[in-house]
Amino acid sequence: LTAAVPDRSIEAHARARQNLLTKPAGSLGRLEDLACWLAARLGDVAPAMPRCEIFVFAADHGVATRGVSAFPQSVTEQMVHNFTRGGAGINVLARLADARIEVVDVGVASDEPTPSGATSARIGRGTHDLSRESAMSDAQVTKALDVGARCVEESYARGARILIAGEMGIGNTTAAACLICALTGAEPASVVGRGTGIEDPVLALKRAVVASALQRMTLVAKDAPLRVLAEVGGFELAAITGLYLAAAKRGVPVVLDGFLSAAAALAAVAIEPGARDWMLASHLSTELGHALALRALELEPLLDLKLRLGEGTGAALTLQIIRAALALHREMATFAQAGVSGPADTRV
Amino acid sequence: LTAAVPDRSIEAHARARQNLLTKPAGSLGRLEDLACWLAARLGDVAPAMPRCEIFVFAADHGVATRGVSAFPQSVTEQMVHNFTRGGAGINVLARLADARIEVVDVGVASDEPTPSGATSARIGRGTHDLSRESAMSDAQVTKALDVGARCVEESYARGARILIAGEMGIGNTTAAACLICALTGAEPASVVGRGTGIEDPVLALKRAVVASALQRMTLVAKDAPLRVLAEVGGFELAAITGLYLAAAKRGVPVVLDGFLSAAAALAAVAIEPGARDWMLASHLSTELGHALALRALELEPLLDLKLRLGEGTGAALTLQIIRAALALHREMATFAQAGVSGPADTRV
Repeated sequence: LTAAVPDRSIEAHARARQNLLTKPAGSLGRLEDLACWLAARLGDVAPAMPRCEIFVFAADHGVATRGVSAFPQSVTEQMVHNFTRGGAGINVLARLADARIEVVDVGVASDEPTPSGATSARIGRGTHDLSRESAMSDAQVTKALDVGARCVEESYARGARILIAGEMGIGNTTAAACLICALTGAEPASVVGRGTGIEDPVLALKRAVVASALQRMTLVAKDAPLRVLAEVGGFELAAITGLYLAAAKRGVPVVLDGFLSAAAALAAVAIEPGARDWMLASHLSTELGHALALRALELEPLLDLKLRLGEGTGAALTLQIIRAALALHREMATFAQAGVSGPADTRV
Repeated sequence: LTAAVPDRSIEAHARARQNLLTKPAGSLGRLEDLACWLAARLGDVAPAMPRCEIFVFAADHGVATRGVSAFPQSVTEQMVHNFTRGGAGINVLARLADARIEVVDVGVASDEPTPSGATSARIGRGTHDLSRESAMSDAQVTKALDVGARCVEESYARGARILIAGEMGIGNTTAAACLICALTGAEPASVVGRGTGIEDPVLALKRAVVASALQRMTLVAKDAPLRVLAEVGGFELAAITGLYLAAAKRGVPVVLDGFLSAAAALAAVAIEPGARDWMLASHLSTELGHALALRALELEPLLDLKLRLGEGTGAALTLQIIRAALALHREMATFAQAGVSGPADTRV
């Protein structure tokens, strides 16, 4: 599995184009960088806004029985229904961005079948309790990675050229915190946050749960990311990892969301370092360990709006900024076209 | 001239609505605050995206003859042509936001008439050199304020309920720096920046020019903002001030842009403190004194994308974030509607 390589020559041409547009050089700041970054990855010096698809992976977590979330586990399944009816935050932002959204049930803990309107790809009825045993088997991790990869292939065939992976799973910030600690070497105290909004006593419990999971897996090699995923990951986290890996191989840029997304991105980059080249960091979440995870990924988020909802919402919001950056890059007149003089001493 | 008062009761109802939506309370961060802020000002608990209009005020500055800009003065007029043909950054972002744009010539230094496609409201052929004499007469300031006020009335009649004021004027960051220094008491060294991208020697000259202007007007009362505008402002700066004042009186929110916008906002707030209640700070510019000016206004910018183009571009970009915040606020399902359980111990 090897990541594709962005076209640096197209990136250089895009940069040259930016410097011809009727504005002081560099005055559109990160919008200029963003347009050039996308040009290199979409294979077009002045690309139109690519078709985007959003996959929301839903799954449950055995560790939820430890009481680490402010919400009961049943909310995962209830939110899958909400997604299929268009009522969740990610639905609103997908409509606004004109992006196809697909909800993928990779392991909701329910006696009911996956609701119609969502894709059924259940790998289990929730994971095992990661604080006491391996969350998943190796075979389950492989299956989840494959689900993510299949999303890339199917969306690519439909013409999607930019992808977002979102998630829903009560208890999943606990799994993501374990992954981030295991993959970066950071301590739980600097990674474990309040998730959906837990109070101090629950936060202390959640930290202890993460610490005991990390303790349990001291024998797992840090350079064996698939083992780390199996020990303390989750179905949706592994599916997102699989999506990021397949997107990098296929050469499709992905817009990262928040804390969960960063954990999956770290796993993907640990498996294939070249995957990082296809990742765009959308926003800085208020979840404690997110800034640390982004620094480890060496990615700079575009927005800081104090979001912590997940589902892919921060990434979907950022599609609006991406659209603007590409429109400016494509549609602005050049100095020559507009008959505008360049800087006083260096006519452009 | 008294500013309207936002409806705090509608704001409280909007906040209550946010807490019923299917997400952890507060998890949409500043998007929640933004929706509630707009609800209070649009007079609707769950408002649709209001119709927006953008006014770009163009004018020249006598101080440009001192060589304080990287671009020749003729660029102001050339850019007015570019605006009327749709080729500038603000045109692209206005199209994207479906916002009407009007270019208003309040004082371009040209022998040619205002080009068709722009509104002619010339108060002079550029201002006088503010480093040596008053930039404008009191009568000219009054005229410019009236131009801005007229834009509010005309756009209100067309149904616009959110406004952006942008600008174009070679040399105008020098005037804005003078205004910010005079209105906040800050030193030129912490306010005067590189504008369109001047090198160190020109920056030193620009600082000296600002310092001499401030020196010249030591007798002008700090609490006489109209006098300050006349001494060191500009036609477009005064027109924007007039637009902000009239919008506040009319009860129409305005989205501030960057450095120029902040200078005009400070002047407006000095004239009528209640005007601040109608101002939304869109982005933090890289222009040196912008952060200081926003702090003086007690406004927190939404975006930080290293923009420094002006024209209203940062504000127009932020319309995409505003649209998203309002769509989430209006369209997300409540816990009750979606049949989703609230936090474990407090069913919503």
